[in-house]
Amino acid sequence: MQYRIEKDTMGEVKVPADKLWGAQTERSFENFKIGPKASMPLEIIHGFAYLKKAAAYTNCELGVLSEEKRDLIAKVCDEILDGKHDDQFPLVIWQTGSGTQSNMNVNEVIANRAHQIAGKTIGEGEKTLQPNDDVNKSQSSNDTFPTGMHIAAYKKLIETTLPGVEQLQKTLSKKAEDFKSVVKIGRTHFMDATPLTLGQEFSGYAAQLEYGIKALKNTLPHLAELALGGTAVGTGLNTPKGYDVKVAEYIAKFTELPFVTAKNKFEALAAHDALVESHGALKQLSVSLNKIANDVRMLSSGPRSGIGEINIPANEPGSSIMPGKVNPTQCEALTMVCAQVIGNDMAIAVGGMQGQFELNVFKPVMAANFLQSAQLIGDACVSFDVHCAQGIEPNYEVIKKQLNNSLMLVTALNPKIGYYKAAEIANTAHKNGTTLKEEAVNLGYLTAEEFDEWVKPEDMI
Amino acid sequence: MQYRIEKDTMGEVKVPADKLWGAQTERSFENFKIGPKASMPLEIIHGFAYLKKAAAYTNCELGVLSEEKRDLIAKVCDEILDGKHDDQFPLVIWQTGSGTQSNMNVNEVIANRAHQIAGKTIGEGEKTLQPNDDVNKSQSSNDTFPTGMHIAAYKKLIETTLPGVEQLQKTLSKKAEDFKSVVKIGRTHFMDATPLTLGQEFSGYAAQLEYGIKALKNTLPHLAELALGGTAVGTGLNTPKGYDVKVAEYIAKFTELPFVTAKNKFEALAAHDALVESHGALKQLSVSLNKIANDVRMLSSGPRSGIGEINIPANEPGSSIMPGKVNPTQCEALTMVCAQVIGNDMAIAVGGMQGQFELNVFKPVMAANFLQSAQLIGDACVSFDVHCAQGIEPNYEVIKKQLNNSLMLVTALNPKIGYYKAAEIANTAHKNGTTLKEEAVNLGYLTAEEFDEWVKPEDMI
Amino acid sequence: MQYRIEKDTMGEVKVPADKLWGAQTERSFENFKIGPKASMPLEIIHGFAYLKKAAAYTNCELGVLSEEKRDLIAKVCDEILDGKHDDQFPLVIWQTGSGTQSNMNVNEVIANRAHQIAGKTIGEGEKTLQPNDDVNKSQSSNDTFPTGMHIAAYKKLIETTLPGVEQLQKTLSKKAEDFKSVVKIGRTHFMDATPLTLGQEFSGYAAQLEYGIKALKNTLPHLAELALGGTAVGTGLNTPKGYDVKVAEYIAKFTELPFVTAKNKFEALAAHDALVESHGALKQLSVSLNKIANDVRMLSSGPRSGIGEINIPANEPGSSIMPGKVNPTQCEALTMVCAQVIGNDMAIAVGGMQGQFELNVFKPVMAANFLQSAQLIGDACVSFDVHCAQGIEPNYEVIKKQLNNSLMLVTALNPKIGYYKAAEIANTAHKNGTTLKEEAVNLGYLTAEEFDEWVKPEDMI
Amino acid sequence: MQYRIEKDTMGEVKVPADKLWGAQTERSFENFKIGPKASMPLEIIHGFAYLKKAAAYTNCELGVLSEEKRDLIAKVCDEILDGKHDDQFPLVIWQTGSGTQSNMNVNEVIANRAHQIAGKTIGEGEKTLQPNDDVNKSQSSNDTFPTGMHIAAYKKLIETTLPGVEQLQKTLSKKAEDFKSVVKIGRTHFMDATPLTLGQEFSGYAAQLEYGIKALKNTLPHLAELALGGTAVGTGLNTPKGYDVKVAEYIAKFTELPFVTAKNKFEALAAHDALVESHGALKQLSVSLNKIANDVRMLSSGPRSGIGEINIPANEPGSSIMPGKVNPTQCEALTMVCAQVIGNDMAIAVGGMQGQFELNVFKPVMAANFLQSAQLIGDACVSFDVHCAQGIEPNYEVIKKQLNNSLMLVTALNPKIGYYKAAEIANTAHKNGTTLKEEAVNLGYLTAEEFDEWVKPEDMI
Repeated sequence: MQYRIEKDTMGEVKVPADKLWGAQTERSFENFKIGPKASMPLEIIHGFAYLKKAAAYTNCELGVLSEEKRDLIAKVCDEILDGKHDDQFPLVIWQTGSGTQSNMNVNEVIANRAHQIAGKTIGEGEKTLQPNDDVNKSQSSNDTFPTGMHIAAYKKLIETTLPGVEQLQKTLSKKAEDFKSVVKIGRTHFMDATPLTLGQEFSGYAAQLEYGIKALKNTLPHLAELALGGTAVGTGLNTPKGYDVKVAEYIAKFTELPFVTAKNKFEALAAHDALVESHGALKQLSVSLNKIANDVRMLSSGPRSGIGEINIPANEPGSSIMPGKVNPTQCEALTMVCAQVIGNDMAIAVGGMQGQFELNVFKPVMAANFLQSAQLIGDACVSFDVHCAQGIEPNYEVIKKQLNNSLMLVTALNPKIGYYKAAEIANTAHKNGTTLKEEAVNLGYLTAEEFDEWVKPEDMI
Repeated sequence: MQYRIEKDTMGEVKVPADKLWGAQTERSFENFKIGPKASMPLEIIHGFAYLKKAAAYTNCELGVLSEEKRDLIAKVCDEILDGKHDDQFPLVIWQTGSGTQSNMNVNEVIANRAHQIAGKTIGEGEKTLQPNDDVNKSQSSNDTFPTGMHIAAYKKLIETTLPGVEQLQKTLSKKAEDFKSVVKIGRTHFMDATPLTLGQEFSGYAAQLEYGIKALKNTLPHLAELALGGTAVGTGLNTPKGYDVKVAEYIAKFTELPFVTAKNKFEALAAHDALVESHGALKQLSVSLNKIANDVRMLSSGPRSGIGEINIPANEPGSSIMPGKVNPTQCEALTMVCAQVIGNDMAIAVGGMQGQFELNVFKPVMAANFLQSAQLIGDACVSFDVHCAQGIEPNYEVIKKQLNNSLMLVTALNPKIGYYKAAEIANTAHKNGTTLKEEAVNLGYLTAEEFDEWVKPEDMI
Repeated sequence: MQYRIEKDTMGEVKVPADKLWGAQTERSFENFKIGPKASMPLEIIHGFAYLKKAAAYTNCELGVLSEEKRDLIAKVCDEILDGKHDDQFPLVIWQTGSGTQSNMNVNEVIANRAHQIAGKTIGEGEKTLQPNDDVNKSQSSNDTFPTGMHIAAYKKLIETTLPGVEQLQKTLSKKAEDFKSVVKIGRTHFMDATPLTLGQEFSGYAAQLEYGIKALKNTLPHLAELALGGTAVGTGLNTPKGYDVKVAEYIAKFTELPFVTAKNKFEALAAHDALVESHGALKQLSVSLNKIANDVRMLSSGPRSGIGEINIPANEPGSSIMPGKVNPTQCEALTMVCAQVIGNDMAIAVGGMQGQFELNVFKPVMAANFLQSAQLIGDACVSFDVHCAQGIEPNYEVIKKQLNNSLMLVTALNPKIGYYKAAEIANTAHKNGTTLKEEAVNLGYLTAEEFDEWVKPEDMI
Repeated sequence: MQYRIEKDTMGEVKVPADKLWGAQTERSFENFKIGPKASMPLEIIHGFAYLKKAAAYTNCELGVLSEEKRDLIAKVCDEILDGKHDDQFPLVIWQTGSGTQSNMNVNEVIANRAHQIAGKTIGEGEKTLQPNDDVNKSQSSNDTFPTGMHIAAYKKLIETTLPGVEQLQKTLSKKAEDFKSVVKIGRTHFMDATPLTLGQEFSGYAAQLEYGIKALKNTLPHLAELALGGTAVGTGLNTPKGYDVKVAEYIAKFTELPFVTAKNKFEALAAHDALVESHGALKQLSVSLNKIANDVRMLSSGPRSGIGEINIPANEPGSSIMPGKVNPTQCEALTMVCAQVIGNDMAIAVGGMQGQFELNVFKPVMAANFLQSAQLIGDACVSFDVHCAQGIEPNYEVIKKQLNNSLMLVTALNPKIGYYKAAEIANTAHKNGTTLKEEAVNLGYLTAEEFDEWVKPEDMI
């Protein structure tokens, strides 16, 4: 492999000749061989591209950066956002906890690429842009990384998580409506109980997701606050007046999302409670989705010896020998995602609680877990929706049989023949394995016609 | 011990003669010897007292309960709320997961106590009130227990948690103001950094709690929704028309809290995402409080070999031999509470995710963990506030010494003598263990007077 | 209330006249009003009684304490272990994280009670025993509290947890044997699968607990190591030579448990990984028990519309109107315990990871969570065993019906008539809702006699 | 892109022409678009390669597979293990929870590649190997996937985790020896305490890891047990006699690791407590490592205003302006890994507790989290060792200054001049900010020479 020499304040470093990064990226690459390469989420790099461009515009507007430099920086940022340099960010999550090295990775790539755009070979002549002085102007790792992670997190929630959950919520609401007349046996304590409609059951699922969506949206204002402008410790040292408000406006403009500058920059650097807060809502959604998916799995169980009240789509061969064995694979994928998100919630809490003085140095692990959860929930909801929920249909025959078979319906006879006789009927049917109707008639307490008239599950919902 | 005989549908049971409970309570007491007795939180029992009274009023208003019975039920409920029967609820958290047995405990105590109020001995003559038919009228365990736990949880947040956190938040805000002129060294990566004021540092803490309070308040509307009226499976079987809305109104009136009937009763019985949601905010507060308390612990460390920038009150002998050893015991209590709440969050998630069909049967464990967290955070914030935060004072001498000693102040010379000379000064001072001023003068780059004029930490904040 | 005056190095304190504790206990009682009173587990106090007695014997043997003092200390410790002073320990978990105040509580109670035994009124004349100099001789809070919690934890595991789990394991093993001939349908993905015996199913449960017991026992050696002798920072300052080994021997003798002195006292004070390690095994047991209890719940579901393959004992009225509705309340209690233990595991991890320098100050919260888990698992296993597991019986009728009804048995025909014809039979039966036998004969591929001879579920296990 | 047609029992599927996989892989690829592609860990695929080869050998030896087929299967498995087909496994973690589709992915790749090796184009003529009948012979997804994940997990622990932790443990032990004479101030409650040596402090860290390694090794026997031979539900249906023992022997031979067949196959399919158990030890290690790394971070803090008792290597520019600002980046990476592992522990518990009947369908999420933790801990320990721990050196000057400055040394005067005079000396020194020696002489209690003779920190350790 070909190398070139890059320098930083510690001396010279060999960097692969075809790479845009510089000395500090290379040092980090060598010093942190932990887990797979390039694990730092690309969404955060793209968050950096937005903020570097916004900083360049703000610096220019406030008179501390030339228009030429602004435009060069912006041009490279746009290339990064177009995905043209995705292979230029080789660093891992498990680096310095402030994400300094990923900030420098972005600074170095922008500076070197700008040099190319300016028509020169990397290393040739004077630098077109200084990574620290120009690209990082009015910034510190300590305020850029949390800004980058808020941008990435917010975008992910808006573009992936919320649409995914809302899509599934809509389907469940539709099913609640579609199934509103399908009376079925209820189950409490996993035991037969009084009836309800399948639509009512699904309305509970839809309601859970509605609450979850609302809870997640409640957390967005905190997440919309950006640390940028706090620089090293939150005081905003070395930023021009008005910088923080304006740079957030530019970020809002470029991302088309309602970002604002953080009310308190000390909180924004030293604590990442906004991630804790929003991820709490993702955990809530996981708790909900786990319940829903598990119910669907159990309701569709069978084909012969399960609950079997609904049918779900067969998306892949379950078993070559056993027709009707439709494994609830989408339920399984979704509940696995839920387990992951619940675990991630703990990783985020453990990181979030350990900030010290002016800086929390668990930024990358918190951001990476957040982004994974947000992506997985969004994706898994769409997958579950398209490949399972939309295709759910009642198994009318089973539903009807189980409903009519239910001893619980005897409740309807209480007002007619009194509690004790009703109980005797139920008791006898349970003992003999017969139906309520049979025993009611056998015991001589009412006629078959009376039974049919008085015991109507559809009136019990 | 004296016993009397109580009966239920399974037969006779011996109950201690001096106790108001009945057969079903006694069976549960015998069948669930798990952990210490009477662990079911009394707050939930009191929640039941509110709802039983409200149900009696609603049933009466809707014509299904006599005024005499209503008044008897209400009278006993008021006695329970006055704490007169706290020893009549011996059951544990670890019973049936619907809390049925605690519901029956309340029903039985109310019925037996009403019998006494009616001037009879328990067991004598006909029952004044039937536990099931009168006290539990228009109710089921499945909707009463979640109602009781929402009442208990909401009240605890309003009466204990929020006041406690707000009290501490106010003190931290006041300290932020008091210390706004105390310039001190900043620390990032636990290493010396550029200065800020002690007030700015505390403003970050105050901001954390402000966000936490806001996050907690965001969750209250969901928690204000009550399951009552859903009865066994959510359909509201056996309730008179209009019951659910009205009974919530009565509960709101009696508790003076903004309770409303749940929009979807199926969700309200089968999922307890409202507890998951609110406890997520308690977890967030714990994450914040852990950071704050740990910072206070470290800032007050010493007396000689620590950070030592603040003094905290000495509340108890630290060590009889070593004056000045003020152990940060309130920080320790608070951070232990944080660890507990973070654990509780997981217990609640694990319970919340496992609802099945029409019922979640992890109600008692979810409610008990929630109430513990809410109590501990409120109490610990008050304790930390009164015995620590209010008494925090800057250790001006140490702060000043560390600030003046800091090599980081060299940043201020960059515009005057250029980056390289500034770095040389800092480098030399670090190597020689001297001050910037000494080396600046030694190296001949500026005079002592210039140093004093140019290097002013108070201009760097 | 009557008070007397107690003194410590900070001055005078009023203490209730009927209480044995002194000034430092009273200060802690006032300064830490967090959660319910006296939450510090009594098991830890009893652990202290063992170690104070052992320290007295060791100090005496090594020549630094008189026999009179030794015997007085030992006498009070025995009274404490007999439960005579349980109301003398009013402090909470949420105090100083080293448990110093509970150590002083024990020291003060022993000293004051010894004064009474010596025939004097508390406060009268010279102290018979000095709390610090005599009772706490050769000790520090920093080594006594971890010693007390190891004693408490180890005893709880040996006396409650292991016997409970082993009792349940034995029952499950017996059921595995009892049910070894009960062939039933298997279920994978919650869908019908090839058969196995009910005994095999239960053998899996028994195996889970066997592994769990083994895992728990693996952790005992670490837990058997005691910090005592490390004193303030682990160096053993102020202890006579040979003290640490000997004091552990005395503790082993008094408790009849294999305690030894910790190999490294610095680890023993600054880290409580032994609790983390043992509780990891409790968490594993919870994971196992949750699976088992949930399976039992589902296997017993019904009575008409569930899986219904086993019957469990009816311990309390499920529903007055519906016979056969036996709610799986013991399963519910047990799974709630599992949720708690999994949460406690996180609280313990969060506490364990935050030790700083020579001391971990999350001792009380770690110990309290550990003891709760150990108690709950032991109790819940016994409760589940006695009130549920022992009474589990197969529902032969349902098992047989579901087995014979299963389409999965068609697998047995593959070698006889080939895969395609077998699949056609199964397919047709699924479509028509008929049996394999019917369709096999209808399709003319084999006779009824051949079917009965070839399709034998008992040969498929 | 070019496609070919592959078939399964559900019909035809278009597969990219250059890929070796078949219909079922392609269906899964389309049906589970959740998170990044190919997230199923390659280590599991390699685990499959070992077991497929072992199954082929066993099947051949037991007479149910020809030698030609055995050799073909083995040849492709070896190619997979050589990393030649890493791009042929595009599936995600979030698929069916039994990992069926990854099992089929391996079966399909082996069959198609064998066809190529046999000199044919994929799809051309009769299949050389049938994916289900030959490659999957005597197997089911339900026993292969847990076998594959045990192989992957065990190998990772042996090859990465244990060597990494042991390497760091060795360094810490060496430092404990190297620093055994460096007397320094101790700290409890983050406050100055009596002295110890830096070596003693490090011996505590070394001991923590020693216990952790032992705990992890304790879990290996359970993890060494393999499910293979249980097939669909644990009964071993469709396996030749002796298959399970022999196939485990082949796996042990091929991997050179002590694998054995699981004692109870029902447990091995329906529960993954072995992963829960081993990961519990990884969590314990994280708790330990977090404490160690945090201590190192704090001990190295400064350069002027921190604890500053040790120096750590400078691996990258901390700050261009501030020499001596060596950020503890390796501590940060390591503690972030700890946060991740603690979160993963919860994800694994949540998955492990939700097995149902004969199958746990959280296999992929459990395995993926396990492998991530095992990799990260191993890698991070090596990184921390090489780039930080090995280079740790005492900052003798600071250590000496803080030690001599300590008021805690006054303890040494107690036996000479009595407690009260000693306390007076300490008190006065604290108030005046002077040294013990100064005040001891000032107060006239002893001479400077006596002080030097009596107060020797090196005698207090």
